[in-house]
Amino acid sequence: MEFMDGTWKKEINTWEELVGNNLLNQEAVIEGAVHSIRNMGDVAFIILRRREGLFQTVYENEMANVSIHELKEAMTIRVKGILHEEERAPHGRELRIRHIDILSTPAEPLPMAIDKWKLNTSLEAKLNYRPISLRNIQERSKFKIQEALTKAFRDYLYGQGFTEIHTPKIGARGAEGGANLFKFSYFHKPAVLAQSPQFYKQMMVGVFDRVFETGPVFRAEKHNTKRHLNEYTSLDFEMGYIDSFEEIMAMETGFLQYAMNLLKTEYAKEVQILKLDIPDVSKIPAVRFDVAKELVSQKYNRKIRNPFDLEPEEEALIGQYFKEEYGSDFVFVTHYPSKKRPFYAMDDPEDARFTLSFDLLFKGLEITTGGQRIHDYNMLVQKIEDRGMTQEGMEQYLDTFKHGMPPHGGLGIGLERLTMQLIGEENVRETCLFPRDMNRLEP
Amino acid sequence: MEFMDGTWKKEINTWEELVGNNLLNQEAVIEGAVHSIRNMGDVAFIILRRREGLFQTVYENEMANVSIHELKEAMTIRVKGILHEEERAPHGRELRIRHIDILSTPAEPLPMAIDKWKLNTSLEAKLNYRPISLRNIQERSKFKIQEALTKAFRDYLYGQGFTEIHTPKIGARGAEGGANLFKFSYFHKPAVLAQSPQFYKQMMVGVFDRVFETGPVFRAEKHNTKRHLNEYTSLDFEMGYIDSFEEIMAMETGFLQYAMNLLKTEYAKEVQILKLDIPDVSKIPAVRFDVAKELVSQKYNRKIRNPFDLEPEEEALIGQYFKEEYGSDFVFVTHYPSKKRPFYAMDDPEDARFTLSFDLLFKGLEITTGGQRIHDYNMLVQKIEDRGMTQEGMEQYLDTFKHGMPPHGGLGIGLERLTMQLIGEENVRETCLFPRDMNRLEP
Repeated sequence: MEFMDGTWKKEINTWEELVGNNLLNQEAVIEGAVHSIRNMGDVAFIILRRREGLFQTVYENEMANVSIHELKEAMTIRVKGILHEEERAPHGRELRIRHIDILSTPAEPLPMAIDKWKLNTSLEAKLNYRPISLRNIQERSKFKIQEALTKAFRDYLYGQGFTEIHTPKIGARGAEGGANLFKFSYFHKPAVLAQSPQFYKQMMVGVFDRVFETGPVFRAEKHNTKRHLNEYTSLDFEMGYIDSFEEIMAMETGFLQYAMNLLKTEYAKEVQILKLDIPDVSKIPAVRFDVAKELVSQKYNRKIRNPFDLEPEEEALIGQYFKEEYGSDFVFVTHYPSKKRPFYAMDDPEDARFTLSFDLLFKGLEITTGGQRIHDYNMLVQKIEDRGMTQEGMEQYLDTFKHGMPPHGGLGIGLERLTMQLIGEENVRETCLFPRDMNRLEP
Repeated sequence: MEFMDGTWKKEINTWEELVGNNLLNQEAVIEGAVHSIRNMGDVAFIILRRREGLFQTVYENEMANVSIHELKEAMTIRVKGILHEEERAPHGRELRIRHIDILSTPAEPLPMAIDKWKLNTSLEAKLNYRPISLRNIQERSKFKIQEALTKAFRDYLYGQGFTEIHTPKIGARGAEGGANLFKFSYFHKPAVLAQSPQFYKQMMVGVFDRVFETGPVFRAEKHNTKRHLNEYTSLDFEMGYIDSFEEIMAMETGFLQYAMNLLKTEYAKEVQILKLDIPDVSKIPAVRFDVAKELVSQKYNRKIRNPFDLEPEEEALIGQYFKEEYGSDFVFVTHYPSKKRPFYAMDDPEDARFTLSFDLLFKGLEITTGGQRIHDYNMLVQKIEDRGMTQEGMEQYLDTFKHGMPPHGGLGIGLERLTMQLIGEENVRETCLFPRDMNRLEP
């Protein structure tokens, strides 16, 4: 009987061995995709792409078993050779080839030159050829940054006593009401795709006190802007026993500090590839919604048209204001008008026209919406009634409150938007692996 | 201007302080939900439920500001008192109450007694009252075990050089073909919910070499069994540059070893609450599909009806065989028949009726399907043609192979099934927070 014991002996060298000193001037083996071939006549430089980065191998005619003319870009190969120090090569190393095994061969040449440092092609082309364009080193690095943000979110919250949950994406009704829902038939019953895990994460606060989820959400919004996706990844948390809605903002600030530190340490390679400036999040200003409008109106000489709404241009100016006045890329805008928030938002007891809620703006773009929720059953029922809404389909959600819930609140962060602003992209599609918008359902 | 600096001063004591020695015989403050009240006349024991566990507080008539008759189960309260050593209390501590702040009050009594150690109620009732039934300590512990498995999957794979990806759940077509797909209209275009991230994770192997995703998958299967859900969480990975499909099995074994160790250490509390036996995964037997059928047929005197199919009873018997003969709860069954695997499965070059693939059985139930995939464009196109399938809707997937892909393979693990078998549940709905089946769309 054969047994798997969890180990596997690879006959290739690790990246650490290749860029380290122990194997210098000795035989080494590497595998990778042929990223580019520069044929100089007597020698050719074959750059291999691996998950860790690019590695230079050198082809000298008389030494190898395969003719240089047989080698093509996008082949995957295993190369045996002698490891040399070479200042001009990436990581100061090159492998002088003795033997090549071809692992796979492409059927056609690449449709775009991915080996350029910056991929000079339209967003449309990038998205149409996503599996190819992401082979570009800069392009793929964006998604390592995105990974870091997700990882930081989870690891920080685990450390703060949160429990990870998985809530259903198929449901009978949406958390935000009837608009913007993708609808379909679920075994002959009407069903929708979840706009957010809002109801479920609240229900789970009664069980675990603090919960988070990182998963997809679906919005059938007919927006076709640079900031909207119809499916995106939401970083959600919800926490009970809060003293104030500001405790939620403190938790988000803690996450951002943890994330920026993770980027500087474990993801330093990608930060360098993308030449990112990591923003200072040691302290983030918080300003009331009405005050922010006033400040911007005065400084930029802009008339306040509607005191209960915030236009995208105003959002951008608030971002600009806090950058100029306080040097901060981030600003919490608090106390949003009640009309602009869902029924479950907790109104400010001091002025019920406003809520104990906030948005977090990053370089003038909303990346988070959060706040305290109503935890009292009767207050919640009253609010539903006041809004002329029906309780239908919310029975189990409401039952949760009927049977006791602590004061609580939470937030949702748009992962692609956070990544976009951090990297300085103009279009959120740049920071989504396979974006879904009104016109794009493939690849 | 106010600033958030990522810290928040809580006026309550941490769990570590409460169960430690430094605060003994001193004033301490705790918050929690009233899990149960045992009124003995002169004193009452009020057990608080927090995310960390249960904590005993003692109500003595003359000392507190709130009458015992005002207190109810499912209230949330903040309690100030004196911390005492008390052997018979959980964690050897109790808080003698001086002052109570009521944070929230339920509108109605609980519909079930959640304070019993084992929740004695039907699965149906548990699911109908999910936000309440999960407040039971045993019930919620199941989902901490599930969290541990997800966390272990990610952390182990990060350590093995994998990149986390987020792939779309809305698409133009499914990876496994037309059956079992939830269909809907996406801005007037026909769309489906993803059955698996299969195509996307393969495409991303060409970019990151090794990728994983933990996310929902959707199957419109008309099964109503104890083992099937119509939406579940899939732990997926895909890895390039494999030497053999057995390397994938080695990676899964490594994950399981990491997970079992994490359970024994960081999740020891929940392991103890559920009285789990952590299975030995130091080595997992691997047996060919045809050999496994033969072994079971001989030992249990069972006729082989169809040499190219495995019935659920046969699966269970294979599990039993390897438990009896090798003491293993797990067994890899390899070389599944080609007819039973999707078109992208790599056939065994030595016998094309079988594939370089495997299932992992855990106590006789399939929890993983994996294997090597076809990486050569022409071979893939041929296989599609041989099966009489169309390339329509697979253009970008196929383009990926046209432009070069390394040898690769991967797997998908059903998170709820893995949790179910580990805990020893009979029904997979027990280990899904909010299960979706043919009859259940709520809560």
